[in-house]
Amino acid sequence: MGIKITGIGSYVPNGIATNKSFETNDFYNEDGSAINHDTSVIIEKFKSITGIAERRYVEDNLNNSDIAYFAAKKAIEDAQIDQETLDYIILAQNYGDVKHGSTQSDTVPSIASRVKHLLGIKNPSCVAYDILFGCPGWVEGMIQANAFIKAGIAKRCLIIGAETLSRVIDKHDRDSMIFSDGAGATIIEEMDEEGGILAHISATFSLDEAHFIYFGKTNNKEVNDNTNYIKMNGRKIYEFALTNVPTAMKTCLDKAGIPIDKLKKVFIHQANEKMDEAIINRFYKLYKQKAPEHIMPMTIDKYGNSSVATVPTLYDMVSKGKMKNHSIEKGDIVMLASVGAGMNINAIVYQV
Amino acid sequence: MGIKITGIGSYVPNGIATNKSFETNDFYNEDGSAINHDTSVIIEKFKSITGIAERRYVEDNLNNSDIAYFAAKKAIEDAQIDQETLDYIILAQNYGDVKHGSTQSDTVPSIASRVKHLLGIKNPSCVAYDILFGCPGWVEGMIQANAFIKAGIAKRCLIIGAETLSRVIDKHDRDSMIFSDGAGATIIEEMDEEGGILAHISATFSLDEAHFIYFGKTNNKEVNDNTNYIKMNGRKIYEFALTNVPTAMKTCLDKAGIPIDKLKKVFIHQANEKMDEAIINRFYKLYKQKAPEHIMPMTIDKYGNSSVATVPTLYDMVSKGKMKNHSIEKGDIVMLASVGAGMNINAIVYQV
Repeated sequence: MGIKITGIGSYVPNGIATNKSFETNDFYNEDGSAINHDTSVIIEKFKSITGIAERRYVEDNLNNSDIAYFAAKKAIEDAQIDQETLDYIILAQNYGDVKHGSTQSDTVPSIASRVKHLLGIKNPSCVAYDILFGCPGWVEGMIQANAFIKAGIAKRCLIIGAETLSRVIDKHDRDSMIFSDGAGATIIEEMDEEGGILAHISATFSLDEAHFIYFGKTNNKEVNDNTNYIKMNGRKIYEFALTNVPTAMKTCLDKAGIPIDKLKKVFIHQANEKMDEAIINRFYKLYKQKAPEHIMPMTIDKYGNSSVATVPTLYDMVSKGKMKNHSIEKGDIVMLASVGAGMNINAIVYQV
Repeated sequence: MGIKITGIGSYVPNGIATNKSFETNDFYNEDGSAINHDTSVIIEKFKSITGIAERRYVEDNLNNSDIAYFAAKKAIEDAQIDQETLDYIILAQNYGDVKHGSTQSDTVPSIASRVKHLLGIKNPSCVAYDILFGCPGWVEGMIQANAFIKAGIAKRCLIIGAETLSRVIDKHDRDSMIFSDGAGATIIEEMDEEGGILAHISATFSLDEAHFIYFGKTNNKEVNDNTNYIKMNGRKIYEFALTNVPTAMKTCLDKAGIPIDKLKKVFIHQANEKMDEAIINRFYKLYKQKAPEHIMPMTIDKYGNSSVATVPTLYDMVSKGKMKNHSIEKGDIVMLASVGAGMNINAIVYQV
């Protein structure tokens, strides 16, 4: 018996924002001071660190709940289930629906309720709620669904991660180039076969770290308004992630009793290519090994950081053979791992 | 063995907004048309239906996370536990932190992370997340914590409901008089004694009902801005609640195998006194009985609708002997029930 993914889907928005599209932006430091480089130099440096060449933005007429619905519909179709049999819709998001041109997050009703409405599910016993847990929200939703199934209060759950970060970025902040939009969704249920979720770990670091990612004013101090945008302390996050993510991953793998050599892929949240590479190298170093080639599928160059959507989108692509040099087969053991606002870290060891 | 409440606390804001304080407001219908009554007549009619004479608003310098922290601290003290032993902080909210003078919901980091930060909890294994589930969010948080304990991934959880609706109301909408601010919190854990959570039920009605409570423009069509406020279709909600809440409560009680005569108190979410009375009467009618006197403690006259905070605040007051004609003792069986945005309904049968 294993609690397994029986369907998966993702939605990658059509709008491509290349690095070049930022060339006319005026970037400032957090303290409002000018950055002593041409914008093209800033962008080149940004690219070399983060690995991001372009990112995806939703069209103006779409909201977060719409793209969540698109991904959910695909996951339901992929699982070939009757959607009326779903016991839970767990939707991970952080900013709700922010309409184009608005600065307000619309969260009532919950995005999960909106998705259930759009799917046309009638069954009231399908409980729909949102979880806010930073970028690790979708992985946490999987952990919660797993608990509900184990506790006997659910048999089949839909877990969605959806975010439209393009609606909350400060165009005067270099970090705005990191953020992207997207949605991913999975169906999980108990199956009469081995594998599935073997172990999980979850943690919230909030004593000193709570406000590493926050909602703050524009870097352009000449703009005099009250609007807040997604903001981050990149340096502190980098150090935090490198210190805590590899050990959390090891704790999770050891909890599952899986030797490191058996690990086929690591699907990790992507905010910065250099950071992810450092994390994976440090993770393997904890086992006195070198990270194998093609262990960590990456989409950051084309998709940027789509928050809660990154991990399920990656898993969707690899499981459907859509990424070069990456495939997974029944019986393979993989890890899903994430770090983000909270600051939260989580991981799941999963046997396909 | 039972999963029981071992500590409870609530925070009722100091600011009292009487009905009289609305007398200078200009109220309009939803379609922007004038209401053909003096404001004092509108307020009197409002009072006779909802039972609300005054409500509580937080001071300008406080945010939702602050009052959530106040309630959480009391619950921890009441339980006499070491806060470092908490496995989860589950925080139910719907609008995040909306600073005084702002129209934006600040939800990153999660309000749960902020509360954990304010409490000064060091242990990273204490996982802090927010749940968005309309007014029934706190009851749903209890259901989730119960599942985590049953699944073996938690032993002790802190569940908080906190909301500052005063920050999202439209002063040109009569319904603005319903909404209030507040916070309530409980500690639950497995105890070596009978009772605790005996049964629960949870449902999301979103096919036709998803947008009965929503985020919309001011009723004053002369104000030309993009700001959204909490809005509701009162008539539809009334009909919906009367049709679905009593049957949900009966399903929950029957699931627990408890005869109606054993039920000592019903702690129900309060948005409208007349509606609550109609719900409780219909609930007892399903058992061919009349609702007993003092079965349903009410605070709506003084506290209005404080969303996720209402039920835990009520339970706190009654369990601590702070409400006339209301008390509960060890062994008593009570019900917690809620209805709100989503539209969501839930209930718990609980033995003290």
